Amino acid sequence: MRALVYNGPRDVSIRDMQDAKIERPHDVVLKIIMTNICGSDLHMYEGRTDMETGRILGHESLGEVIEVGDAVDRVKMGDLVCVPFNVACGFCENCERGLTGFCLTCNPGSAGAAYGFAGMGPYSGGQAELLRVPYADFNCLVLPKDAREKLRDYVMLSDIFPTGWHSTELAGVKSGESVVVYGAGPVGLMAAYSALIKGASKVMVVDNHPDRLKLAESIGAIAIDNSRGDAVEQVLDMTEGVGAHRGCECVGYQCHDHYGHECNHLTMNHLVASVRPTGGIGCVGVFVPKDPKAEDELAKMGKMAFDFGTFWFKGQTLKTGQANVKAYNRYLARLIEAGRAKPSFIVSQELSLEEAPKAYEHFDKRDAGWTKVLLRPGV
Amino acid sequence: MRALVYNGPRDVSIRDMQDAKIERPHDVVLKIIMTNICGSDLHMYEGRTDMETGRILGHESLGEVIEVGDAVDRVKMGDLVCVPFNVACGFCENCERGLTGFCLTCNPGSAGAAYGFAGMGPYSGGQAELLRVPYADFNCLVLPKDAREKLRDYVMLSDIFPTGWHSTELAGVKSGESVVVYGAGPVGLMAAYSALIKGASKVMVVDNHPDRLKLAESIGAIAIDNSRGDAVEQVLDMTEGVGAHRGCECVGYQCHDHYGHECNHLTMNHLVASVRPTGGIGCVGVFVPKDPKAEDELAKMGKMAFDFGTFWFKGQTLKTGQANVKAYNRYLARLIEAGRAKPSFIVSQELSLEEAPKAYEHFDKRDAGWTKVLLRPGV
Amino acid sequence: MRALVYNGPRDVSIRDMQDAKIERPHDVVLKIIMTNICGSDLHMYEGRTDMETGRILGHESLGEVIEVGDAVDRVKMGDLVCVPFNVACGFCENCERGLTGFCLTCNPGSAGAAYGFAGMGPYSGGQAELLRVPYADFNCLVLPKDAREKLRDYVMLSDIFPTGWHSTELAGVKSGESVVVYGAGPVGLMAAYSALIKGASKVMVVDNHPDRLKLAESIGAIAIDNSRGDAVEQVLDMTEGVGAHRGCECVGYQCHDHYGHECNHLTMNHLVASVRPTGGIGCVGVFVPKDPKAEDELAKMGKMAFDFGTFWFKGQTLKTGQANVKAYNRYLARLIEAGRAKPSFIVSQELSLEEAPKAYEHFDKRDAGWTKVLLRPGV
Amino acid sequence: MRALVYNGPRDVSIRDMQDAKIERPHDVVLKIIMTNICGSDLHMYEGRTDMETGRILGHESLGEVIEVGDAVDRVKMGDLVCVPFNVACGFCENCERGLTGFCLTCNPGSAGAAYGFAGMGPYSGGQAELLRVPYADFNCLVLPKDAREKLRDYVMLSDIFPTGWHSTELAGVKSGESVVVYGAGPVGLMAAYSALIKGASKVMVVDNHPDRLKLAESIGAIAIDNSRGDAVEQVLDMTEGVGAHRGCECVGYQCHDHYGHECNHLTMNHLVASVRPTGGIGCVGVFVPKDPKAEDELAKMGKMAFDFGTFWFKGQTLKTGQANVKAYNRYLARLIEAGRAKPSFIVSQELSLEEAPKAYEHFDKRDAGWTKVLLRPGV
Repeated sequence: MRALVYNGPRDVSIRDMQDAKIERPHDVVLKIIMTNICGSDLHMYEGRTDMETGRILGHESLGEVIEVGDAVDRVKMGDLVCVPFNVACGFCENCERGLTGFCLTCNPGSAGAAYGFAGMGPYSGGQAELLRVPYADFNCLVLPKDAREKLRDYVMLSDIFPTGWHSTELAGVKSGESVVVYGAGPVGLMAAYSALIKGASKVMVVDNHPDRLKLAESIGAIAIDNSRGDAVEQVLDMTEGVGAHRGCECVGYQCHDHYGHECNHLTMNHLVASVRPTGGIGCVGVFVPKDPKAEDELAKMGKMAFDFGTFWFKGQTLKTGQANVKAYNRYLARLIEAGRAKPSFIVSQELSLEEAPKAYEHFDKRDAGWTKVLLRPGV
Repeated sequence: MRALVYNGPRDVSIRDMQDAKIERPHDVVLKIIMTNICGSDLHMYEGRTDMETGRILGHESLGEVIEVGDAVDRVKMGDLVCVPFNVACGFCENCERGLTGFCLTCNPGSAGAAYGFAGMGPYSGGQAELLRVPYADFNCLVLPKDAREKLRDYVMLSDIFPTGWHSTELAGVKSGESVVVYGAGPVGLMAAYSALIKGASKVMVVDNHPDRLKLAESIGAIAIDNSRGDAVEQVLDMTEGVGAHRGCECVGYQCHDHYGHECNHLTMNHLVASVRPTGGIGCVGVFVPKDPKAEDELAKMGKMAFDFGTFWFKGQTLKTGQANVKAYNRYLARLIEAGRAKPSFIVSQELSLEEAPKAYEHFDKRDAGWTKVLLRPGV
Repeated sequence: MRALVYNGPRDVSIRDMQDAKIERPHDVVLKIIMTNICGSDLHMYEGRTDMETGRILGHESLGEVIEVGDAVDRVKMGDLVCVPFNVACGFCENCERGLTGFCLTCNPGSAGAAYGFAGMGPYSGGQAELLRVPYADFNCLVLPKDAREKLRDYVMLSDIFPTGWHSTELAGVKSGESVVVYGAGPVGLMAAYSALIKGASKVMVVDNHPDRLKLAESIGAIAIDNSRGDAVEQVLDMTEGVGAHRGCECVGYQCHDHYGHECNHLTMNHLVASVRPTGGIGCVGVFVPKDPKAEDELAKMGKMAFDFGTFWFKGQTLKTGQANVKAYNRYLARLIEAGRAKPSFIVSQELSLEEAPKAYEHFDKRDAGWTKVLLRPGV
Repeated sequence: MRALVYNGPRDVSIRDMQDAKIERPHDVVLKIIMTNICGSDLHMYEGRTDMETGRILGHESLGEVIEVGDAVDRVKMGDLVCVPFNVACGFCENCERGLTGFCLTCNPGSAGAAYGFAGMGPYSGGQAELLRVPYADFNCLVLPKDAREKLRDYVMLSDIFPTGWHSTELAGVKSGESVVVYGAGPVGLMAAYSALIKGASKVMVVDNHPDRLKLAESIGAIAIDNSRGDAVEQVLDMTEGVGAHRGCECVGYQCHDHYGHECNHLTMNHLVASVRPTGGIGCVGVFVPKDPKAEDELAKMGKMAFDFGTFWFKGQTLKTGQANVKAYNRYLARLIEAGRAKPSFIVSQELSLEEAPKAYEHFDKRDAGWTKVLLRPGV
């Protein structure tokens, strides 16, 4: 099969790889129809992780079931399924409480596994023609019969839409509340979109890329351009001086200051300042336990100069971590089916698998107009 | 009336002050029967705050109602009442959601008011013969008729018991879970006691004062002496290597390392390491937005070198802030009334008001055996 | 002042009554600008309650503050305020948990008080030129400065919008779920509207009045006409045969069968059948502890032939009772202010106070086109 | 293998049956060490259900794993496991939300499956020497290494302890609240025990069997003998006249009045009267959708003359259904392991499997002293 392989920092290529196949009786194999490039793929692409060379990337996958293991009872040949980026067993203490992003089985010694990801277990990625899905009855979201017309929406259920949604769950967003989202990349846009679906009264999105801010406005959010003035002040001005009820961190450890320097505490400390006393913050941007290639001494150790005093004094709540996709994907699928959610509005390019290396290059440079790339291996 | 007055760093005295009196129609005045010295009183005593000289300290108060304002409907002359340390209005957006520790009315421009406290509004403290209680119908917990025999338990409802309880609520403690508490001072002991009342399966308390660890053991907790080895390792050893389900921070910004240096991130980073992935941390130890007298540069700005990467990677939850005493005091009072909770086990000294300055001195030095001082102004 | 007075069954008139005035220092007096007639006013109008003659009806009130008691700190002269139908103290065990519909103070011996309502305390109603509001700092929702343009929306915050919202809270509606609402009267329409704001994927409304079903469709709900076939079957057909995730009862004890007979169990048993196993039902339609004028023997005693066996076997949840308006009105006000909710779409008539008796007559007959009547005393 | 077989009403016998064996790759087979007789076994024993003759009864099972299917990853040969009475798949919409009592896979066309139970799927029961457990990785609770000494406690995790616990979860019991439990059979005793573990302030248990009430008192509950006076009045007397915060129904549809007549509404209507406004009721006693052999006309149809009016007026909450055992069993196991829970206090007889028919006879007659029978097939 053809697949996108990581060869080393900023070097990926499409190569012939051994076909994915059933390895355990609870597996299925998918023929991939659509798969996306994710911002977190860039962490590996840029060589900031200890990703092994020769591995297939990709964790946002949608495909057709073409092989079914003996122990699989629910998923059938020919089913169209969307696969959460988390590989999860379904029976460990975390999975049984719905915390499938922290499965204790699939990546022994750690908590949480994923396809094609550094440090998240041995699973091959989905930027390929075929994908093996373990514990298939648990992991596959079987799509409704009329799904074919909305596959570009459904593929967003693998990661980006549930991850944006997760940030609003972690932040505790309720109808009628005000919300500020830091970051208007795909996750931030999905966070804003989620808050609006939930009935937030006012959703503010902070970024400095005009094209992304325009997308935020297109769904009814308020764009805050932090290149045109202090973001915190702008948020306070729009919230009676006290800050938003809820805040979402959708940037992660590589956030930059105005001079282009990485500054891992920037968005978090701005959120503490932008959210009101007793407010909630949900952080889904990726932060890492150690980051040897960081410039900053604290950042190298995975630490951050966090405004803990203000955070405590304001009695805020902070919830973090990867999305437990299965906690949301059935419900978000129903919104797509009913025509009440169309997350594909973030797709900027739709390419063949062979074009993926070029897409990585543009996406990595944050080239204008490269918001979200969708790949079609079968085409 | 006689009252304990703050004269300056490490200088308090008992002086004659003007009698507390009704100022607004919703006030009552109490004759104080019991009042405690709190660990947070020491922040002011030690001169680490901008407390105004000449003010009366004390926010843990129990007394008899001797004067009632015209607009007071519920509280009656002669009622025995215990007063939460938070002064709260009952009708602002935070109070009406039960977040009385963050009242938006009683300390305008900030969130949260308290008696006899730096930066928490103009309210006189309760280490005195008389105390004015604003919004009395909302703030007074009227005690049951047979309360006189258990006043030493009921006075703990003003702060220390609800604050310990709050840490377990913030951490999300549920029956059957394991819990680690950092700090075996009065708040930490109340946190451990609360976790046990809620049915935690295993409660570990970390400290290095043998007398306090003994108290922890006396209620059924497991004492972990961090002077005898790494606390985190001891916790991991007792929790199958993965850490406790929940953790409580009950020390605050003045936590010390083994060499006696203040090190504001110590307990928080130990908690991140001691609590399992997806676990919850409740932080009720006080942290401050700025601390000019700190040695550490980050600490001066209220910042902390926080292990954010590990915290995020583990998908942990962190909730903070002062206790909303009214959220718990009715229910904890019922436990005392039914004989199912006796928080007075932490009382180490019971003194007259006139002896209070001496008590401050001992308590400030962390002299062995000075865990919790109860004052009796009327005696 | 002029006011609508209950003279006896199906007999109300506009009369001169003594002006409302400050009685306790925590009161304010409002000049009423808008007030609605509620379906529950008809229970009294029809003589089905023990309402005292000579009392002023009305519990949906919006007005301007023209007099302020001495103990009132927050509400100011000239403020535009909307008043919850519940009269609540703010400091009893129920109020402090946000359960203001069940205040233990304002209607001693019972739980819950209201303006102008049988068995809900001595408070005069708001279908009048003036209204006294007790515990004004707690009870008044002060509207934003630019409220004048949207008063027809804001007046819905007194009862009907929060009551519809409450049914969806009681039912546990979450984004992406399916919801069935029994009853397309004002409360049912507000329930459907609330479910849609919260991001429900599919909202079905059951009724047999074409004009009301049309209103349901106008907001994006699916109309189910139960005069054209079994409602339960229609719901099951639209929900893969298993039923909706959530159901809302918005009719009450006077629901009728196809022959026009009152049959108090009809909607509840249909809900049990229409909601899936583990689903939730919220019941805000009024049911009464006794109903001597009912035809049915069980109904006379306030009992119902409830399908308890099926309800239990399906593991359903049922939550009931009057709305705690204050739990929602601040948040719904923000949705109105932001232009994201316009509950006034249900207003069918806007009349002067003097025209109220006529409106009662039409509304009581369920005359087509009389969905929701708004009265303007000042006009 | 030897097993207890249902031959018809009040006729069970120990017979040789075909050995349980692996049928699907995700199965394991257990050698049963302990198994209990449950009150719900009597519904079948008494011929009140459509249980097929020739089937093996029993759904409270603990055993050793002696055979493991190819797809099983977690459970190992020789593991000691306790099995929830619910058979659940782990991957349907209900299971993935933790609602394993309402699995949509294991009993197609219904919601919820169980071992050896009428209408709950084709699964053989555990009152036998061997038991097949489907979806073993999901369904088996693997016990800790030192479990052998406490097997009599751990076997209670299959049903009775989680079911009692469930009633307190459904009722919403929180620390410091008062709780009334109707029924002092094994489930009611476990409900009271659960409420006490959670820190309830006052737990009242209503029954008329002196031996069962004595057991209730032995764990710290307050016994209310309803043969000595009206139960509701006694509860109100102990709760300041307003009723308990929470109530648990632990009797079911066969509750009897003082004259020995079945009266399915008795406990539920008493609970409505015994619980305060805004209080919660959890109902785990079994109720059935139809009951053709009932005397009462409503009961035949599965209906009940429910005090809906009072229930609604008090704004109460009612949650029902079978326990989702997996939601609790890990946590309750930790309480047993830590020595903080010993549910075996309810065991009244410990017998060999061969003695089971005699035990059914005594238990069915509610003979004094036959509270809970534990069977040991291997002995």
